[in-house]
Amino acid sequence: MAGYKVVGKRVPRTDSVPKATGAARFTADISLPRMLYGKILRSPHPHARILSIDTSRAERLPGVRAVVTAADTMKRKYGLFANTRDQHFLAAEKVRYVGDEVAAVAAVDEDIAEEALELIRVEYELLPAVFDPQEAMGEDAPRLHDGVENNVGWALKLTEGNPEEAFGRCAHVIEDRFFSEKISHVPMEPYGALANFEAGKLHIWAPNMAPFTKRKGLSNMLGLPVPMVRIHHVTIGGAFGSRSDTYPMEFSAALLSMKSGRPVRIQCTQDETMAVTRMMHGAVMDVKMGFAGDGTLLAGDIRFILDGGAYLSSGVMATNAGGHHYSATYRMPNFKYEGLRVYTNKTTCNMHSNHPSNLTMALEQIMDRAAEAMGMDSLDLRLKNAIKANETLANESVISSCGLSECLTGAAEVSGWKAKRGKLPRGRGIGMGCGVCTSGFPLGMRLGSAAFVKLNEDGSATVTTGAIDNGQGNESMMVQVAAEELGIAMKDIALVNGDTELTPQDPGTYSMTATFVSANAVRLAGADARRQMLQIASDRMGVRPEELDITDGRVHVREKPEMGIPVEDVARLSLLAGTPVMGRGAFMPKPHSPQGWADLARKKPGQQGPTYTFGTSVAEVEVDEDTGKVNVLKLTLVDDMGFAINPMAVEGQMEGFAEMLLGQALYEEHHWDTKSGKLLTPLFDDYRIPTALDIPTFETRFVETIDPDGPYGGKDVGIGGTGGVIAAIVNAIYDAVGVRVKSLPVSSERLLEALRKGEGSGA
Amino acid sequence: MAGYKVVGKRVPRTDSVPKATGAARFTADISLPRMLYGKILRSPHPHARILSIDTSRAERLPGVRAVVTAADTMKRKYGLFANTRDQHFLAAEKVRYVGDEVAAVAAVDEDIAEEALELIRVEYELLPAVFDPQEAMGEDAPRLHDGVENNVGWALKLTEGNPEEAFGRCAHVIEDRFFSEKISHVPMEPYGALANFEAGKLHIWAPNMAPFTKRKGLSNMLGLPVPMVRIHHVTIGGAFGSRSDTYPMEFSAALLSMKSGRPVRIQCTQDETMAVTRMMHGAVMDVKMGFAGDGTLLAGDIRFILDGGAYLSSGVMATNAGGHHYSATYRMPNFKYEGLRVYTNKTTCNMHSNHPSNLTMALEQIMDRAAEAMGMDSLDLRLKNAIKANETLANESVISSCGLSECLTGAAEVSGWKAKRGKLPRGRGIGMGCGVCTSGFPLGMRLGSAAFVKLNEDGSATVTTGAIDNGQGNESMMVQVAAEELGIAMKDIALVNGDTELTPQDPGTYSMTATFVSANAVRLAGADARRQMLQIASDRMGVRPEELDITDGRVHVREKPEMGIPVEDVARLSLLAGTPVMGRGAFMPKPHSPQGWADLARKKPGQQGPTYTFGTSVAEVEVDEDTGKVNVLKLTLVDDMGFAINPMAVEGQMEGFAEMLLGQALYEEHHWDTKSGKLLTPLFDDYRIPTALDIPTFETRFVETIDPDGPYGGKDVGIGGTGGVIAAIVNAIYDAVGVRVKSLPVSSERLLEALRKGEGSGA
Repeated sequence: MAGYKVVGKRVPRTDSVPKATGAARFTADISLPRMLYGKILRSPHPHARILSIDTSRAERLPGVRAVVTAADTMKRKYGLFANTRDQHFLAAEKVRYVGDEVAAVAAVDEDIAEEALELIRVEYELLPAVFDPQEAMGEDAPRLHDGVENNVGWALKLTEGNPEEAFGRCAHVIEDRFFSEKISHVPMEPYGALANFEAGKLHIWAPNMAPFTKRKGLSNMLGLPVPMVRIHHVTIGGAFGSRSDTYPMEFSAALLSMKSGRPVRIQCTQDETMAVTRMMHGAVMDVKMGFAGDGTLLAGDIRFILDGGAYLSSGVMATNAGGHHYSATYRMPNFKYEGLRVYTNKTTCNMHSNHPSNLTMALEQIMDRAAEAMGMDSLDLRLKNAIKANETLANESVISSCGLSECLTGAAEVSGWKAKRGKLPRGRGIGMGCGVCTSGFPLGMRLGSAAFVKLNEDGSATVTTGAIDNGQGNESMMVQVAAEELGIAMKDIALVNGDTELTPQDPGTYSMTATFVSANAVRLAGADARRQMLQIASDRMGVRPEELDITDGRVHVREKPEMGIPVEDVARLSLLAGTPVMGRGAFMPKPHSPQGWADLARKKPGQQGPTYTFGTSVAEVEVDEDTGKVNVLKLTLVDDMGFAINPMAVEGQMEGFAEMLLGQALYEEHHWDTKSGKLLTPLFDDYRIPTALDIPTFETRFVETIDPDGPYGGKDVGIGGTGGVIAAIVNAIYDAVGVRVKSLPVSSERLLEALRKGEGSGA
Repeated sequence: MAGYKVVGKRVPRTDSVPKATGAARFTADISLPRMLYGKILRSPHPHARILSIDTSRAERLPGVRAVVTAADTMKRKYGLFANTRDQHFLAAEKVRYVGDEVAAVAAVDEDIAEEALELIRVEYELLPAVFDPQEAMGEDAPRLHDGVENNVGWALKLTEGNPEEAFGRCAHVIEDRFFSEKISHVPMEPYGALANFEAGKLHIWAPNMAPFTKRKGLSNMLGLPVPMVRIHHVTIGGAFGSRSDTYPMEFSAALLSMKSGRPVRIQCTQDETMAVTRMMHGAVMDVKMGFAGDGTLLAGDIRFILDGGAYLSSGVMATNAGGHHYSATYRMPNFKYEGLRVYTNKTTCNMHSNHPSNLTMALEQIMDRAAEAMGMDSLDLRLKNAIKANETLANESVISSCGLSECLTGAAEVSGWKAKRGKLPRGRGIGMGCGVCTSGFPLGMRLGSAAFVKLNEDGSATVTTGAIDNGQGNESMMVQVAAEELGIAMKDIALVNGDTELTPQDPGTYSMTATFVSANAVRLAGADARRQMLQIASDRMGVRPEELDITDGRVHVREKPEMGIPVEDVARLSLLAGTPVMGRGAFMPKPHSPQGWADLARKKPGQQGPTYTFGTSVAEVEVDEDTGKVNVLKLTLVDDMGFAINPMAVEGQMEGFAEMLLGQALYEEHHWDTKSGKLLTPLFDDYRIPTALDIPTFETRFVETIDPDGPYGGKDVGIGGTGGVIAAIVNAIYDAVGVRVKSLPVSSERLLEALRKGEGSGA
């Protein structure tokens, strides 16, 4: 944008070189003197009562320094919210899936720790297990948690307008059932945690999405005062939702450190990471949509059954997101939603990128089918119903900025939609899907961020923010924003972040918050420092602050750039005057809805997220009808992220999420042995993710709607607008071979099966 | 004082438990993974030219990872100021004392590093050395540094009023020569430094008095940008001036880390610490003072020759302090001062506690002799001439608060002066001495401090300040001050301090700054946070902020204490409102002199320090005339520290400094072999410091003058007012046995010699 010097420019991310050279330190790279190695004994049964645990032989093994079980804990239960606490971090009475934590050991090396695990005797009483969410809801199904009817741990029911009456008025009603398998988030870094309990204070290093949330979780679980838990900054190798929970691993490492008096690191293997961290919910989705004769969407009705696994985790948010995001792409005045989050004896599922991409797949496929039924181009049907800025959603959220229509027309133009849709040779097809996501924070989980900026004696600066970077480039963004405000080079800005002791509060990346909330706080802190810098320079130069600007480390008269002084001099003057430049900023979004904020826990309607991001994806595919193999040739991604602070990083986020969705669309699925309850696909041999060979050509475009509250107009990007990629792929498959696949992933087997059954049928 | 809830109370220091239990981590306690052990090759000669250095055999020794010499450096010279740079941290052409750094080695263990040192071949051309400062000033003496006439590295000459004319008007003129040996500061922690150069950034852990000053020093010497050097917080085992310099140890550790790519710790032994860190100047002092017939002090004339050792260090300040402090106890309208800081081939000397306690000894002995000559009680002579608040010193400093007269009368009363002076049986005596020191910062070296305060979600707080604690209790003081302002318990306040990356700028404890400057910044940051807390509570409670107070973690109506809300609620409200409580404060003293600040480097007169502290000490001694042994029975210490923030800590500071001066008065002295140039007294076998058995009974009293600018009226304490202890002891010895000893320390030998020679003579 005009007038900006640093933001809006393509700049290399500050984390790229350390990550490429190996200088970045991930949790597994951190060793402390006298550190012990921890291992966790996990349940071999999907559902069982623990009768007894005998650790005496393990304790006697030379080299073992501590063994912990539920007996060493306060037996508190963990949950993301006060009313969703259902998980003992070391099983207290029952185990609920294969992998559930039963005991933990710390020893002087990993081999001894492994050996000690084998010496622990656990007596189990086996219980019947249930693996399918629909079965789990049955009257006679085994119950995972006491007092939870039908294993439904969380439910959201919404009715807006009068859907029944509206469906009665519809000229076209499309209704179908869709299905998606459980998948993993697959951050590249296996999970691990290092704990050091020293002088009454617990120090934790672990990949996480929200240090302040993890601090609170550990403080609750261990009964330590909040400031006696410190989450340290580490480099994090991806998160995508799977690093949002507090885990038994850091809890166990903490207990072992408390018991042994030494630092303890528990490093999970890859298969352990896959089996015991978090997965994305599999789902059964009954979706019905009704349209007037002119294509106006009149009503929607969804039943979203989520296969949740053993514990609730952030399943609450995943359940609610279905209802709230579903109705935010297309105007839907009458709307019914039932989200049911069901316990099963499998790995716990939580939010995957804050986006029910499976439900989006269902919705966008129905849009396609409705357009076909009405003889319209689905682009036009989408444009007719697309949400616009300043509209109020059925759930009372007000949309403060929206470029969805521009995304639709842009994506159509860039992809050659009009020339290709329905006109490509058989076996080639093009499809479209739209995505939406709240930005700022999800679903009324309101949290703000704050930041400090100090100017150093040489004119360099240090920015202190709680914001964390899980690989998105947030750290780089904070530096870039500060550089814009301070008028100094990015290389001259140091960042202190993601450490609960050193930084002010921040919501973390839970989720789509870093740009809209955290970067806004840094912007305000930078602007505060800038005001101070301009005042000092003004006093020195005898020029009014309004006439001054700061460029490339030099404060100068805007109209006479040759008249100025270096920022280094400003820094020194400020120190000598005893008014060191210290900026502070805090940002908390305001709800645009007259209802105020929605309340996730109390289910109060209102503004769900501070703002929304949108986008349109177009996929061009090639389908081999003999093998069922789908080859995605090109993905066109057009997103509304308000303003692209670093266009290079924004492209990376868009392409990165599109690649994840490509895997979800075509390859990824988890399976369990329903006899033993064991996860069959914990390794990349069996769990197939896209490789470099699978990646299509990308074409990305930005629609910069300049959000009224975003930093420079920016909103978060990635999981919002790009969320229509799966839908675009399945719609393109239909365009290519005339078959609608309603189950994810569209594996070769499923597609061949569908081809055999003929058009419209799903596997 | 009335109205305060936390300050002014006797509270256990926050550092006491960790220090007593061993939880505190000193530099030697910190290990990093892959850390190497560094050792330094030191010059065996007091003065020599380096012809060649061959490190090849050392480099080939298995286990050696790096060897560095001047060839690995940029050959920059170190100095505390830009115009006092005279020291290569690895000798480039010459060595100037036994111990001078020549090369350094890093190896996988200490034994290999030692062995490697023996394999380094250095070819020297020996040069004549000089050990006595008066000899060193001679025409034919060897010169240590090129271009330095008569080895005088720094000189200060002051003339105020007309001393020559004034001496002509005097009824009594007392004149004598005094002498003091070099002594050590003796922090209990041997010196060491840990360096880790990683990803272009140098991390340093080392005991230091001013992290920002050390950062600048290392940045200059290594050619690294300021933010690429980070000084980390460590627990520090004493400093007393000897941890103010940047040392070759951290420089060498840094170079070795850069060369080896691994962390390197150089840990000095006790004798190495004594020989190569810093000492207090020995001195030759010619002092003359003239009085009118009624006892009014009319003129002073001092020549202060300081035995500086090989390099300048902060000798500049020691030289200047003589002139500026000398004239700040008693009104001295006509005054001449010549301070000469002389290079000798011995250990470098620097500031010892910012106080020329040797010169004070001389001055206060002359006061005693003058009173005797005039037939006055020396108490009355002191009272007649004692500086008072709002006076302007000859050097243009304005005294903003002063309780010297109250200290004098208080000490006389508490010690039973009138009843005892001149009236005790032979062998018992009582003596008095006064002390003075700038507080805020010394000698125009103006620097300010800044601080941040953040309120955590549970109502606890974190204070961020650059202030460092060398054992004085500064960390505890910062917490106490913040607790006063925030109205929460000290245990609920965490401190982040003494780390150049994490905290705002601070002058360090260089010297007498922590209370007046740093605590003031914390106070202001706390007050800023308090304002925000009261506003939030006011909005919630519907009561005006002015009517509210905060006590024990609860905001309440001042007049209706039962009406209130917990600070925890305020914290949560502030987070939810997006206005997290974030206080900031900065403090820079203002000069009271119309001349503004004095300038140390440019020798411009003006305000030397922001304020001054004063005190009177009375010693009661017992002298064994057969052995010459002096036994100090009791020390009465009455100090003006403005306001005692923590009376228990203030007593500790007063008693601690008195104990140091007791050692300086009676026991401590360093000696060199004038042939080999070797320090003969590097270990406690030969270098005698006071032990528990030598410590007298203490009686301490505070004179709280409530300085207009100090925090709650406080000023720094310890090295100021208590500085008269040596004088009190020597004056008491005269009272006991009629002998005036003019050389320090008053060892048994010296006293026996003086007793043999009779009254008035010195050794």
